[in-house]
Amino acid sequence: MSRVDVVLLMGSSSDWTHLRPAVDVMRELGLSCRVHVTSAHRTPERTIELVRSSERDGCQAFICAAGMAAHLAGVVAAHTVVPVLGVPLPGGVLDGVDALLSTVQMPGGVPVATFAVGSAGARNAAFFAAQIVAGTRPEVAAALRRARANGAEKVLAADRELRSEWDQGGG
Amino acid sequence: MSRVDVVLLMGSSSDWTHLRPAVDVMRELGLSCRVHVTSAHRTPERTIELVRSSERDGCQAFICAAGMAAHLAGVVAAHTVVPVLGVPLPGGVLDGVDALLSTVQMPGGVPVATFAVGSAGARNAAFFAAQIVAGTRPEVAAALRRARANGAEKVLAADRELRSEWDQGGG
Amino acid sequence: MSRVDVVLLMGSSSDWTHLRPAVDVMRELGLSCRVHVTSAHRTPERTIELVRSSERDGCQAFICAAGMAAHLAGVVAAHTVVPVLGVPLPGGVLDGVDALLSTVQMPGGVPVATFAVGSAGARNAAFFAAQIVAGTRPEVAAALRRARANGAEKVLAADRELRSEWDQGGG
Amino acid sequence: MSRVDVVLLMGSSSDWTHLRPAVDVMRELGLSCRVHVTSAHRTPERTIELVRSSERDGCQAFICAAGMAAHLAGVVAAHTVVPVLGVPLPGGVLDGVDALLSTVQMPGGVPVATFAVGSAGARNAAFFAAQIVAGTRPEVAAALRRARANGAEKVLAADRELRSEWDQGGG
Amino acid sequence: MSRVDVVLLMGSSSDWTHLRPAVDVMRELGLSCRVHVTSAHRTPERTIELVRSSERDGCQAFICAAGMAAHLAGVVAAHTVVPVLGVPLPGGVLDGVDALLSTVQMPGGVPVATFAVGSAGARNAAFFAAQIVAGTRPEVAAALRRARANGAEKVLAADRELRSEWDQGGG
Amino acid sequence: MSRVDVVLLMGSSSDWTHLRPAVDVMRELGLSCRVHVTSAHRTPERTIELVRSSERDGCQAFICAAGMAAHLAGVVAAHTVVPVLGVPLPGGVLDGVDALLSTVQMPGGVPVATFAVGSAGARNAAFFAAQIVAGTRPEVAAALRRARANGAEKVLAADRELRSEWDQGGG
Amino acid sequence: MSRVDVVLLMGSSSDWTHLRPAVDVMRELGLSCRVHVTSAHRTPERTIELVRSSERDGCQAFICAAGMAAHLAGVVAAHTVVPVLGVPLPGGVLDGVDALLSTVQMPGGVPVATFAVGSAGARNAAFFAAQIVAGTRPEVAAALRRARANGAEKVLAADRELRSEWDQGGG
Amino acid sequence: MSRVDVVLLMGSSSDWTHLRPAVDVMRELGLSCRVHVTSAHRTPERTIELVRSSERDGCQAFICAAGMAAHLAGVVAAHTVVPVLGVPLPGGVLDGVDALLSTVQMPGGVPVATFAVGSAGARNAAFFAAQIVAGTRPEVAAALRRARANGAEKVLAADRELRSEWDQGGG
Repeated sequence: MSRVDVVLLMGSSSDWTHLRPAVDVMRELGLSCRVHVTSAHRTPERTIELVRSSERDGCQAFICAAGMAAHLAGVVAAHTVVPVLGVPLPGGVLDGVDALLSTVQMPGGVPVATFAVGSAGARNAAFFAAQIVAGTRPEVAAALRRARANGAEKVLAADRELRSEWDQGGG
Repeated sequence: MSRVDVVLLMGSSSDWTHLRPAVDVMRELGLSCRVHVTSAHRTPERTIELVRSSERDGCQAFICAAGMAAHLAGVVAAHTVVPVLGVPLPGGVLDGVDALLSTVQMPGGVPVATFAVGSAGARNAAFFAAQIVAGTRPEVAAALRRARANGAEKVLAADRELRSEWDQGGG
Repeated sequence: MSRVDVVLLMGSSSDWTHLRPAVDVMRELGLSCRVHVTSAHRTPERTIELVRSSERDGCQAFICAAGMAAHLAGVVAAHTVVPVLGVPLPGGVLDGVDALLSTVQMPGGVPVATFAVGSAGARNAAFFAAQIVAGTRPEVAAALRRARANGAEKVLAADRELRSEWDQGGG
Repeated sequence: MSRVDVVLLMGSSSDWTHLRPAVDVMRELGLSCRVHVTSAHRTPERTIELVRSSERDGCQAFICAAGMAAHLAGVVAAHTVVPVLGVPLPGGVLDGVDALLSTVQMPGGVPVATFAVGSAGARNAAFFAAQIVAGTRPEVAAALRRARANGAEKVLAADRELRSEWDQGGG
Repeated sequence: MSRVDVVLLMGSSSDWTHLRPAVDVMRELGLSCRVHVTSAHRTPERTIELVRSSERDGCQAFICAAGMAAHLAGVVAAHTVVPVLGVPLPGGVLDGVDALLSTVQMPGGVPVATFAVGSAGARNAAFFAAQIVAGTRPEVAAALRRARANGAEKVLAADRELRSEWDQGGG
Repeated sequence: MSRVDVVLLMGSSSDWTHLRPAVDVMRELGLSCRVHVTSAHRTPERTIELVRSSERDGCQAFICAAGMAAHLAGVVAAHTVVPVLGVPLPGGVLDGVDALLSTVQMPGGVPVATFAVGSAGARNAAFFAAQIVAGTRPEVAAALRRARANGAEKVLAADRELRSEWDQGGG
Repeated sequence: MSRVDVVLLMGSSSDWTHLRPAVDVMRELGLSCRVHVTSAHRTPERTIELVRSSERDGCQAFICAAGMAAHLAGVVAAHTVVPVLGVPLPGGVLDGVDALLSTVQMPGGVPVATFAVGSAGARNAAFFAAQIVAGTRPEVAAALRRARANGAEKVLAADRELRSEWDQGGG
Repeated sequence: MSRVDVVLLMGSSSDWTHLRPAVDVMRELGLSCRVHVTSAHRTPERTIELVRSSERDGCQAFICAAGMAAHLAGVVAAHTVVPVLGVPLPGGVLDGVDALLSTVQMPGGVPVATFAVGSAGARNAAFFAAQIVAGTRPEVAAALRRARANGAEKVLAADRELRSEWDQGGG
């Protein structure tokens, strides 16, 4: 397989709706990425194989998304020293706080960098992966700075729009 | 190795204080048991080897105790169809509720039977393991019924004691 | 009555939608089961009679489902040493966490093995009941291993499907 | 046995420290009371016998205290239409919120009137029991009104004391 | 005004949907009741007047329902020694747990007997009010026992129905 | 009585340890203040009298501290349009989150401005009261700006100290 | 720019639906207000500029609304001693409790007066801002008292309506 | 100033006890680091200056630790595209869960990679920072792999020790 910047793993194809925004962000920022369905509990050996092959292909960050017991990121982190970014998914009895705590509270020396629950966290994990890659790829750093500037401009535009409605009595 | 009824796994030797009561219960009920320190994240291969060797030695139940992200029971359950009993340990940010939810919310087909947090749960996991073994070992069933009768007798004795204090003006 | 492997008790017929998947799992794995509506608080004597008659018919595990105060599994466990599996149901003010804590925190010597809230927990309780029965019935152990293999195959198939969409630009 | 106004039941003699203040309140307000250790799960038949004998002795309210799964009040309520007051005790994984929710969320038609966790709740359950008895015993109503007046006077005295310290520069 | 057994107070007419079932229960059990909208914070004097007039009319229990900060039951309890039953309503940021804790955690000597959140709690508060009244009105005690028997019969009927479906392959 | 800037009310003299820091802050910022023990439930009329007399003496803000059901701030707010600042106290079953939610979730039109739980919140309520008073008293505004500058200087000093330890190998 | 009483800041134009009721309240009470979209994280410099220009225009209170990490009110409070009122918004993983705790738990000396989550809190923040302004503007104090009287009248009207339905058998 | 790999920021010198273990880990893994006390609310300009100077000195990751409202990591993230690692500290009303949620729930495009509460999280943030640096510094990657091997060896040693005690009857 060809080289890849980021490998995104999810426990079930039903998680895909939460993760697609992360892929969009990575493409926009110029990262190559690969996506797999694999399960910490149903296909543990396959999960480890994917970690190995991703490392060989130059993967600089894993994004692992899981809900409920949310062990996927931890299993991946146990088998690599490449940075692992964990995205807790909603659906458990605390609707994602459970998955968040299961993802973030890793034992010493086996960290998982954790992001917010669901697609908001998935998008920010993608931005963060780009921030890691940007350390050695100036064009990614530039893309990140452009994205920040765009984000600021959107806020300013929203402010102008709200205030123009307001001036016209619509506020 | 010789045959064993129950194998008890913990992630760290600091968990031992929570689990010793479980071992006491199992001995009292006539079960043979074996205890190991092994980690889902630091020694994943060793954990799987212990599952395999325990199965070969006739193990009828695993008791797995872990806190925080609490993945140990799940990793064991992923590699066996022998019943896995999970004991969440205190110590995380929700002081065990986090470990409880991480232990109990397993994906479909890979169940972990979960007990209360800490040594109370460990003791009851030991009783439950004996209830499984009792299905084929009448002397264990008899020991369980004796333990129940003792439990009832202790309550009645406590009632008598409280009431006798009371009659003497101490209540 | 004829012999039965597992008896499933629920507090209200409205709980049936959560529990039907458990019955489907047990049939698929070759277990015989019986289902009753009975209430810890409204029909306490009847509940105890059902425990007695189930024991006489060789029942190897009870699955008890209840929400809110969730006392049903505890009442059953108080009257038998056959393994009791508790399934907390949603609907209380913490939407199932309350029932989960009420189910799992039993006094010493009267354990209830607890599973996740709602139908996910019910299904896993059914798998776990089969894991108990499998200790003495090799065909059930074989069915469990087939179910695990099927579960793994479904994950691999989902991965292939996601990646084939992806290759076609649909990812 | 002689007649009794209130019967107080607890699951373990270790609960007695939480409940002694309730007995002090009841004596102060002129109620007769009786205290028993009995367990919903370890001595279920004995618990029901105590309900029956208490009813025969004219008991006008039960106060039932329990922690963890906290089934005791519910079991009593299932066997009587005399008012049952539940006092959740600390000690579970949510330190009493779990027992509170297990006590308060009873099925329809089998109410448990619930009070705060621990000795604060026990004292208020005792006051409330007196409020029930006061419906037919004017001297208890009078004692309750005196207790209220004393409570108000204590607040006023605390205010005076704080302000006198303050005037002397100690505030 | 004529005599009344129970007075039910709510903070807003939007609470009425939660409370109507309580009124149905009280009628079914032969209690007279009165219903008012009054607010602890918007009409504090009026609330106190309603307590006074209800006492004069022989009211034996107040049922007070409120959500959010949920002060209504507490204000009423501060002005009477007639039993006050509190029904927390959903709608706050913890969807009723907040109102529950605000209702149940009253200072010493000013108890509020608390029931579950929402209409389930309202119904049980109504049953509990009837249990208080039943102490002096045998026909209410008889109505309560009939209601219990009906509750048991409904469970048995649900069991028969489920099992008959099952026998016909519908289970 | 003489004029007063801020009146601080607490439900019990045991709350004083949490509130003394607020008084220290107010003195430091040049505000006059008065302190009372009064209870929403035990001395409701007295509480209202204190609101009235404080208003007559020119009080520009109330600080009300209470734990558990935490109704004090709400009762005060119901009787004045002077700003009411609420300080939830620890001690309830959620150790202050309960009091926080009971304080902050007031009905529309009767606001209580809420601060953090315990003495941290009490201090900030005192700062905030000074910010209100500063609107018409320039010397209070100046004192607030000095306090902010001091706060910044303390952080810079802590940084210098940490770094000097560090340079000497103590870091 | 002209003078302004209150400046309302929100992190995103999607927050506007929660905040519009606050603007309606302020207009009704005779306050001038200004509304801006600005972000603590995307437009931090612009946020500080808005604080500065608002101070120059005589702003007597800021209302800052934000969800999730909810830093906006804190950033504003760090740059002014004008009172800052924080309105937590729903949307985070605890649906507003997270934003509430992030808003209310400010470091010493940099207070944010916090209100309930969402539009209920926004409305009460608006009332509270008017209570601050009323200290120097008698016509605002009068408007506040009228609003209180209207609130009471609405409760009395709701009571009359409920009771008239009831008298006609509709209750 | 000289070049630096990681800059660690904390809001108060009292946080230092939680963070010292992170510095120990970084030294052990061969990273250079710098430590500062700076506050998002008390020294906001200074915080931004530190971000700028750290970037100039080649900083590859920030570790930001804060409790309560926990805004520090967010403020830093708002001013850089260098990876920001957030460590929530205990001390708030949810003892760190509040800080965790405030740290992890950042707006889109401004991510903070979050770790567990307190010193456990600080240590893992240090390991993670090393994993980022390891992408371009093979000797850091080697140190990380040695640390993993040591972690595994410690578990195996703990297992041997427990089992040897056990063999001697000490288990």
